[in-house]
Amino acid sequence: MIETPYLLFLGDAPDGLAAKVAQGIRDWRPEFCVGQYRMEGCNADLGLTDMTLTQARDAGAKTLVVGVANRGGKISQAWKKVLVTALEEGFDLASGLHNLLRDEPDLVAVAAATGRALHDVRVPEVEYPIADGKKRTGKRVLGIGTDCSVGKMYTGLALDRSMRDAGMKATFRATGQTGILITGDGVPLDAVVADFMAGSVEWLTPDNDPDHWDIIEGQGSLFHVSFSGVTMALIHGGQPDALILCHEPTRTHMRGLPEYDLPSLETLRDVALPLARVANPGCVVTGVSINTQRMSDAEATAYLAEVEARMGVPAVDPFRHGAGRLAEALAAL
Amino acid sequence: MIETPYLLFLGDAPDGLAAKVAQGIRDWRPEFCVGQYRMEGCNADLGLTDMTLTQARDAGAKTLVVGVANRGGKISQAWKKVLVTALEEGFDLASGLHNLLRDEPDLVAVAAATGRALHDVRVPEVEYPIADGKKRTGKRVLGIGTDCSVGKMYTGLALDRSMRDAGMKATFRATGQTGILITGDGVPLDAVVADFMAGSVEWLTPDNDPDHWDIIEGQGSLFHVSFSGVTMALIHGGQPDALILCHEPTRTHMRGLPEYDLPSLETLRDVALPLARVANPGCVVTGVSINTQRMSDAEATAYLAEVEARMGVPAVDPFRHGAGRLAEALAAL
Repeated sequence: MIETPYLLFLGDAPDGLAAKVAQGIRDWRPEFCVGQYRMEGCNADLGLTDMTLTQARDAGAKTLVVGVANRGGKISQAWKKVLVTALEEGFDLASGLHNLLRDEPDLVAVAAATGRALHDVRVPEVEYPIADGKKRTGKRVLGIGTDCSVGKMYTGLALDRSMRDAGMKATFRATGQTGILITGDGVPLDAVVADFMAGSVEWLTPDNDPDHWDIIEGQGSLFHVSFSGVTMALIHGGQPDALILCHEPTRTHMRGLPEYDLPSLETLRDVALPLARVANPGCVVTGVSINTQRMSDAEATAYLAEVEARMGVPAVDPFRHGAGRLAEALAAL
Repeated sequence: MIETPYLLFLGDAPDGLAAKVAQGIRDWRPEFCVGQYRMEGCNADLGLTDMTLTQARDAGAKTLVVGVANRGGKISQAWKKVLVTALEEGFDLASGLHNLLRDEPDLVAVAAATGRALHDVRVPEVEYPIADGKKRTGKRVLGIGTDCSVGKMYTGLALDRSMRDAGMKATFRATGQTGILITGDGVPLDAVVADFMAGSVEWLTPDNDPDHWDIIEGQGSLFHVSFSGVTMALIHGGQPDALILCHEPTRTHMRGLPEYDLPSLETLRDVALPLARVANPGCVVTGVSINTQRMSDAEATAYLAEVEARMGVPAVDPFRHGAGRLAEALAAL
């Protein structure tokens, strides 16, 4: 659990794209963001107040979050100077970098001396149990994709916002690095050892109020041969009551696998539901989330209407139109 | 890769069951077994020649294999004395114990000083790639189960023997600790990090002769919620041409999951084949392997005939009747 609120470290990001993790935190958890810290040469700007470490600390920030890709694959000395000072000022550090904070001897030494925490969200920090498959109280919804990177996390976060806005009890459960940095908690599922994958998802989504929804961040795809095992563990560990099918209609082949075609939404539904019903016999598909960013407004509207007629459940692009109809379908379950 | 041949260490096994890993090596790879090493109080006997370390070394043994469960969950001083001497005599050590050899400072120090290897087969020793899904040459068969522990490894080893006896090119590809100790090589799949599971199976079953068969050891079950992700990675990483369905008919619920019923063989087939055809569109079910150990001869014969008629492919118990008909079905593919 990463302590909030955050000061978002943008470093010397060459452009906004390099700071997209920080942008995600800003977009989805503005209440966690006290301000931004930009170094000389930084070309990213989240529209937050620029703060020094001291100003941010005085404003209550607990953790400096490295929400930016590092140049050249190493943590530079210029960054180090800020990170070390932050530890000395009483901040914890959190990072989703491939280079781990814990692999930097100076950061480790200063964190130990100051009693601060280094959170590398790519590495599991918990010994997860083996899944026991026991039915848990409360409700769960999982986004599953025809492919990787079609918008499952975005769909989950939008759904979380819509459900809370509608007064429903909901918690977004992060299963990837970006999601963990956005919400401050979660399981880095792709880094969990095989035998404990499903158990880690059970751990992440424990017993809850009967009318509470866990919105579980999806990963991979049952049809993506590199990562399908991770998706399978989410379906069985999460024992979802509801599935939301996620799709990007202009994708011409599976991501990173040029020889592989995408399945249809019907095929995804027909393969996933029998598997999901092993863990939860009542599981149903309640909606379709379409990433229409590469379509015009007219194309998107026509495509969504066609999918909705075909699939018999609400089909929306949560980015264009909000996730309200997906939330309503869950409320009606 | 563990160097063969082996001296099998039975320690002070209280009974034969405690030495079942050694028994498996003895049963399936007798040509790897120079002899057995028994300590005072050992009640297991594999029928191999009892040897001292020196005798075994002179007979050509390269590795001392700890093929026995340890009492009390720790490596005793009595065992240590033998293991340290074995290193000094020039043996490598291999073990499938939960307690790792590498966690014993004395063994680590002596192995370093003598230049010998410590193989803990529960721990991956390779950095596996992420799966790329590319079609590989050669053929592959995978056993998949209605449940865990229904005889998938045994089926694979019996098939390996029958195929070699029939003059076919075949390699058993171990994916679990016992299988790795039996064959000297493999991937401890349940200990691999999630993102690399399918890639490790691709690595294990590379391009081969067009008429060569990899017999991939199955793990878990698509219907076992604790481990289904591991099974999924085997199906997509292995890209099998043939599946053999494995079943234990007297099982009343999924192993370790009292609330979960077993699927029928038809359900297993109908769920697994569409998933397998994502990676290999030509995949078919070529046989059924039934573990009939809890049935009389007459019951087993009647049950197998009934399954064979229902499923339309050979149904055998490889332990009672050999795997010859399963091998013939692969040869005919």
